Amino acid sequence: MRFDIITVLPSLLESPFAHSILQRAQKKGIAEIHVHNLREYAVNKHKSVDDYPYGGGSGMVMQIEPFAQCIEKLQSERTYDEIIYMTPDGVTLNQEMANDLSTKENIIILCGHYKGIDQRIRDVFVTREISIGDYVLSGGELPAAIVVDAVVRLIPGVLSDETSALSDSFQDGLLDAPIYTRPAEWRGHRVPDVLLSGNEAKINEWRDEEQLKRTKDRRPDLLKD
Amino acid sequence: MRFDIITVLPSLLESPFAHSILQRAQKKGIAEIHVHNLREYAVNKHKSVDDYPYGGGSGMVMQIEPFAQCIEKLQSERTYDEIIYMTPDGVTLNQEMANDLSTKENIIILCGHYKGIDQRIRDVFVTREISIGDYVLSGGELPAAIVVDAVVRLIPGVLSDETSALSDSFQDGLLDAPIYTRPAEWRGHRVPDVLLSGNEAKINEWRDEEQLKRTKDRRPDLLKD
Repeated sequence: MRFDIITVLPSLLESPFAHSILQRAQKKGIAEIHVHNLREYAVNKHKSVDDYPYGGGSGMVMQIEPFAQCIEKLQSERTYDEIIYMTPDGVTLNQEMANDLSTKENIIILCGHYKGIDQRIRDVFVTREISIGDYVLSGGELPAAIVVDAVVRLIPGVLSDETSALSDSFQDGLLDAPIYTRPAEWRGHRVPDVLLSGNEAKINEWRDEEQLKRTKDRRPDLLKD
Repeated sequence: MRFDIITVLPSLLESPFAHSILQRAQKKGIAEIHVHNLREYAVNKHKSVDDYPYGGGSGMVMQIEPFAQCIEKLQSERTYDEIIYMTPDGVTLNQEMANDLSTKENIIILCGHYKGIDQRIRDVFVTREISIGDYVLSGGELPAAIVVDAVVRLIPGVLSDETSALSDSFQDGLLDAPIYTRPAEWRGHRVPDVLLSGNEAKINEWRDEEQLKRTKDRRPDLLKD
């Protein structure tokens, strides 16, 4: 699977893609992540990629031509399944969407910055608009990293223990049960006895109950469907 | 405002905090962001901070003692308003929560990794559990960066143009109107005439209509309250 990320701040994404699961996936050849500097596609001598909004107002708007140049160069090299724009008014990312994206081959992600991108980039090029949640950030770079992380860890072979991803929160529509490790007692706080019992059936029953209880308590909306 | 982030992967957070608005906020002395390596608080000679889950199952669990050591050291130096744990079963981050957090002074953020942290850390230390959305990631580091970004940009003096944050999506409960910049025509795609009219009243009216239309179309749930 290949991601091409287009941004004015390529260096912001350096460390997130160089560690942990994303590093491992790239080393194993399971995922390729390419970050493109939008400024290299600027069409004026100042290398600027933004301009004032038509109709006035605060904030700068990213111009259509640099994105068009970069996207069309990439498209001349391979076919893309999706061109995603990270934006707070997109469809909210969830685990189902991450599962779906993990089956794709080539994905371009556009990172907005400043006030956002010219609407015509969205109209002409973008196939999917994704929001990671109902809050505003300073750019689309961290959201792009979130999408890549959520998706890449689902590709078979990336996680060392595949059952781990399947037992995560949301994969079965429920939140996780509480988890504990040693020591069994810490400043008077004890691990629940059942987890120390060695009785696998009872442990599974306890975990199922706790998952349901926690989901009812914290996220009753997940149980409605 | 001060953030102390506790993680096993401090280097993952290097580039996100060294750029853009977060860099500017730190340079201006408006925000301090300190990243702490949890391994420095490991209590065994192998510097490991995780162990097998009680009751069996896949994935490793982060131990209570290293977090306790690090948190208590920080608490001996200053008072913290919140100790936040980033977790998919936390309360979902939204703009209102970001606004609220931007009024705090000192915040600790715990990043989980592997299968998560020992439940007793949550019971004993954590004051708030925050999720950035209904999807699973490989760790709490990117979510911590998201929270810091969403919050810091709201502190007065951080954004160069303060009206910009106020006109963002969600701040008035509506999504943004489409935005455009030069050129007025690109491969036959024209900017809406009203934005070129110079008639401020008509432009504002158009933007209000577009905001409402886009919100109705994409996020009718935002209009229900």
